[in-house]
Amino acid sequence: MTTYTAPVVDMEFIFQDILDLYQYKNLPGFQDTSPDIVSAILREGAKVTEEVFHPLNQSGDAEGCQWQNGEVTTPQGFKQAYKTYVDGGWNGLTADPEYGGQGMPYVLGLAINEMLVSANHGLAAYPGLTQGAIEALQAHASDVLKQTYLPKLISGEWSGTMNLTEPQCGTDLNLMRTRATKSTDGSYRLTGTKIFISSGEHDITDNIIHLVIAKTEGGPDNLKGVSLFLVPKFLPNGAGAPGERNGVRCGSIEHKMGIHGNSTCEMIYEDAVGYLVGHEFKGMRAMFTMMNAARLGVSVQGICHSEASYQNAAIYARERLQGRSVSGVKNQDQAADPIIVHPDVRRMLMTSRAFNEGARALALWIALQVDLAEKLPDEKARQDAHDLLDLLTPVIKAFFTDKGYEYTNTNMQIFGGHGYVVETGMEQYVRDCRITQIYEGANGIHGLDLVGRKLPANGGRAAQLFLSTLQSFIETHRNNAAMAEFIGPLGQAMDHLQQATLWLMENAAKSPDHAAASSMEYLSLMAHTAMAYMWNRMALAALNGMDSGKGNQKFYRNKLITARFYMARMLPDILSHLERLKSGADCMMALDAEDF
Amino acid sequence: MTTYTAPVVDMEFIFQDILDLYQYKNLPGFQDTSPDIVSAILREGAKVTEEVFHPLNQSGDAEGCQWQNGEVTTPQGFKQAYKTYVDGGWNGLTADPEYGGQGMPYVLGLAINEMLVSANHGLAAYPGLTQGAIEALQAHASDVLKQTYLPKLISGEWSGTMNLTEPQCGTDLNLMRTRATKSTDGSYRLTGTKIFISSGEHDITDNIIHLVIAKTEGGPDNLKGVSLFLVPKFLPNGAGAPGERNGVRCGSIEHKMGIHGNSTCEMIYEDAVGYLVGHEFKGMRAMFTMMNAARLGVSVQGICHSEASYQNAAIYARERLQGRSVSGVKNQDQAADPIIVHPDVRRMLMTSRAFNEGARALALWIALQVDLAEKLPDEKARQDAHDLLDLLTPVIKAFFTDKGYEYTNTNMQIFGGHGYVVETGMEQYVRDCRITQIYEGANGIHGLDLVGRKLPANGGRAAQLFLSTLQSFIETHRNNAAMAEFIGPLGQAMDHLQQATLWLMENAAKSPDHAAASSMEYLSLMAHTAMAYMWNRMALAALNGMDSGKGNQKFYRNKLITARFYMARMLPDILSHLERLKSGADCMMALDAEDF
Repeated sequence: MTTYTAPVVDMEFIFQDILDLYQYKNLPGFQDTSPDIVSAILREGAKVTEEVFHPLNQSGDAEGCQWQNGEVTTPQGFKQAYKTYVDGGWNGLTADPEYGGQGMPYVLGLAINEMLVSANHGLAAYPGLTQGAIEALQAHASDVLKQTYLPKLISGEWSGTMNLTEPQCGTDLNLMRTRATKSTDGSYRLTGTKIFISSGEHDITDNIIHLVIAKTEGGPDNLKGVSLFLVPKFLPNGAGAPGERNGVRCGSIEHKMGIHGNSTCEMIYEDAVGYLVGHEFKGMRAMFTMMNAARLGVSVQGICHSEASYQNAAIYARERLQGRSVSGVKNQDQAADPIIVHPDVRRMLMTSRAFNEGARALALWIALQVDLAEKLPDEKARQDAHDLLDLLTPVIKAFFTDKGYEYTNTNMQIFGGHGYVVETGMEQYVRDCRITQIYEGANGIHGLDLVGRKLPANGGRAAQLFLSTLQSFIETHRNNAAMAEFIGPLGQAMDHLQQATLWLMENAAKSPDHAAASSMEYLSLMAHTAMAYMWNRMALAALNGMDSGKGNQKFYRNKLITARFYMARMLPDILSHLERLKSGADCMMALDAEDF
Repeated sequence: MTTYTAPVVDMEFIFQDILDLYQYKNLPGFQDTSPDIVSAILREGAKVTEEVFHPLNQSGDAEGCQWQNGEVTTPQGFKQAYKTYVDGGWNGLTADPEYGGQGMPYVLGLAINEMLVSANHGLAAYPGLTQGAIEALQAHASDVLKQTYLPKLISGEWSGTMNLTEPQCGTDLNLMRTRATKSTDGSYRLTGTKIFISSGEHDITDNIIHLVIAKTEGGPDNLKGVSLFLVPKFLPNGAGAPGERNGVRCGSIEHKMGIHGNSTCEMIYEDAVGYLVGHEFKGMRAMFTMMNAARLGVSVQGICHSEASYQNAAIYARERLQGRSVSGVKNQDQAADPIIVHPDVRRMLMTSRAFNEGARALALWIALQVDLAEKLPDEKARQDAHDLLDLLTPVIKAFFTDKGYEYTNTNMQIFGGHGYVVETGMEQYVRDCRITQIYEGANGIHGLDLVGRKLPANGGRAAQLFLSTLQSFIETHRNNAAMAEFIGPLGQAMDHLQQATLWLMENAAKSPDHAAASSMEYLSLMAHTAMAYMWNRMALAALNGMDSGKGNQKFYRNKLITARFYMARMLPDILSHLERLKSGADCMMALDAEDF
């Protein structure tokens, strides 16, 4: 049986001491973000995730979803837990107050999202997909669509989905076949098959609102010809309640490695009524509104499994007696010491811990840019926030989910053979986490997105901003002797990243294969540099906290210890990433395809 | 539906061109090892694994083992497949001819073992455990026990198990509680509970012979007080057939992440009749005979899943059309190019390929030392073989299973969302592979075994032999210009390993925590050095093959390409391993246990 405790104190520290969140009180949505209110929200979020979501995590995995005649039954307790969640107003936390939301900052929503997925990934994915639908409609839909659908989606009465993938096309949406034909009444009729649709069908809400990408007649047969449509499961009647059943049904659900509690559906559209969201042929723009938010959300999911499995591994490591400390017996009155005395067990725990805390800070810093890009009064400042967000979203989507999976595995490893047994719950974290490397763009795509689009965009403006932000931090604190042990490694990481950038600029021109071949190495270098920056900011805050003599001194001391671990044991990866990057594409393109 | 093709040509190359196996024709067991006979055995092995074992791999996973009233039913087809395997004489391939075995070299057995596990890990584990029992009995049992049990185990009529773990003790066998009491007839009565017993109960053979570690009365209550016992499920009657049921039963089977086709049993011993194997209180010595062989076997299992998943990923990457090559359209008459055109897909495939081929060569080189340590006429030469075997077994157990798991995951990644769906079979490889990092000693233990025991043993004799072997290779080929691109990186790896050794020598004395903290980094450095050495030997053989103008020229060319990939893209890991190692234990021991 696993346990979960939401990292409220760490989040409070990040909001207060790292993001300085309360400086933005003049921005819309930030008026209510006092430390007290944010703490209260975090503590209430902790309660619902620890007490309502988490107890259903293992049972939801064991039971899974059942499909019969197009209907999906979710695991026992899911419907009631979801009701508790929406009754608590959680579904509309960050949504537009005009349609019933609470309009709180996005960054706070992402913190709550971490708790939800850590507690129960399968269950969290039902409201999780709704968030993307809300954001897409808020940004692109007509007022009529907004008025009809947003209040129900925001209250959580109805849920949402996102339909891109088809059997023949995942990454390459040019190949999409789903067609939308315009009716005389201005609506459309959609026909086609979508697969891997998370929460596509279930018994948790009265209606399900599908956002579907399709091609319309007369448009180009590629990405430029796609539009976004809203297709409800039940067409709302005059009173706005679910009415006539629409021509969309769930053909089957997938048997998956993990997230068994969530339904992954094949959705069949047969002359289904749909409404255009935004403009014709602008489907990808609208879809990217959903996808960018979803990608930030998925990047955090990598943290979730590493965090939840870390907590359980730490408990096990303190309790399991096995062997003796190499530096002398620690547990005189027992036949063995707890395994947490062994340096290699601590290496595994510290690695996950340093990742979780560093990644959480980095994710929330990037999430704050979502708010700032929209709400800052100064245009240049909004552009800066947007640039950082665009640049770093693919970086953390791939890096956090790859590393999160790796460390979820090491946390399972701490249980030895017991970790391989279903009942301890550790292998479920591994199976559930595995999807995060795949969905919202398989991780390799994010490497390409980074080096092919985000890095060269606007003459490299975003990367320059990122590096100058770090450089100015270094310059500000260069004379702080206590920071030297952190600033040194950060400078080294920046140097490696700059060498890599130079290499890319020099070699991408020779062959585009070089950039693609080294894209994941480059992504890792940027991720480590960003992580080193966040650990610097956290170390600084901890040093300041210690100087003040106030607050949780043990917390500050432990932050410094973990910061040192990151520099000593994790950041050195940059050495091999740079070396590999510089070897280019030749060694991987030389083999003939038929010889693999 | 997955496919599997045994890597016969690669194995032939390793036996002929790397190990020069046929130089040992004068040694016992090697008389029949002509290239023709070895090829015939490999090709027959390929047949049984591809045609009999592999077709049951996915169905065995889906069906799993069923436990009812102490009886275990294996998945459909397993019993018949096992019969085909033993009828083909495979079970006794390397066993003592005096008891019905074929006495072939151990190294050849390990090659066949790779095929078996690649084809069907769950099924292969039934005869797999028998091999360890045969080896322990051959080495330690009395003639009476040998005559009664070895012929049946070698023919495969009966199977064997290995019983160490108990609920309260896995790694730390000092804590073992199972007791053996001597009877008046010289046999013992065993009482206790063992867990995680692979193939502990099943319906595949008429009898199951358990090798069980237990403590006897009057001995010390730690490792020095344990002895090894043979406990048959059915006591043989006068005719040597299964007779009276013994006091051992299967209390339950585990629900596991993977290897569902294999039964992992709780075995309850209640006054069970057992026979001492070897001497009282020498149980660990006897058990290590089984464990060392098992560890070599498990190290190869890391290759198995990486190889099998690689083969399927390569097929998928050639067939799946998605996106366009960054260097220009490759597939003019289709809407998209196969994903194998993308450098990042090739990066993943090449990484697995370079690991599989390098690790296979290294594993077989080490396996050859098993034969040489026993059979070489010269005592010093036998000692050398023994030293290399002892030193490198923990290295490859941990490194091959950690990397094998990592690359099995990347092969699954190539399938995108389809890899997460059970039906493609890719996620099963991941789940099955995961156990290899855990069983036969969780991988961290092997790091400790390396730096704590194997490295300092006999004044560091084994490590010196390993390094001098590599050094003499470098000196021999220093003037071969074509080898420069491979010898350079090998020299760099050796230099890093030597720096690490020096660091350990200087710092372990200051605190034993330093050595333990850096043990896995050290292990990785030694593994990469050994892999670089094998890739050097393979590159040399490929260059010689190309010079000769004979043989499979494409095969040689592809070996060189893959060797280059290893040097450029995988070996650079040594940079970060050394940097991490040098940071020592302080950063991981600083946090108080209760603060994790």
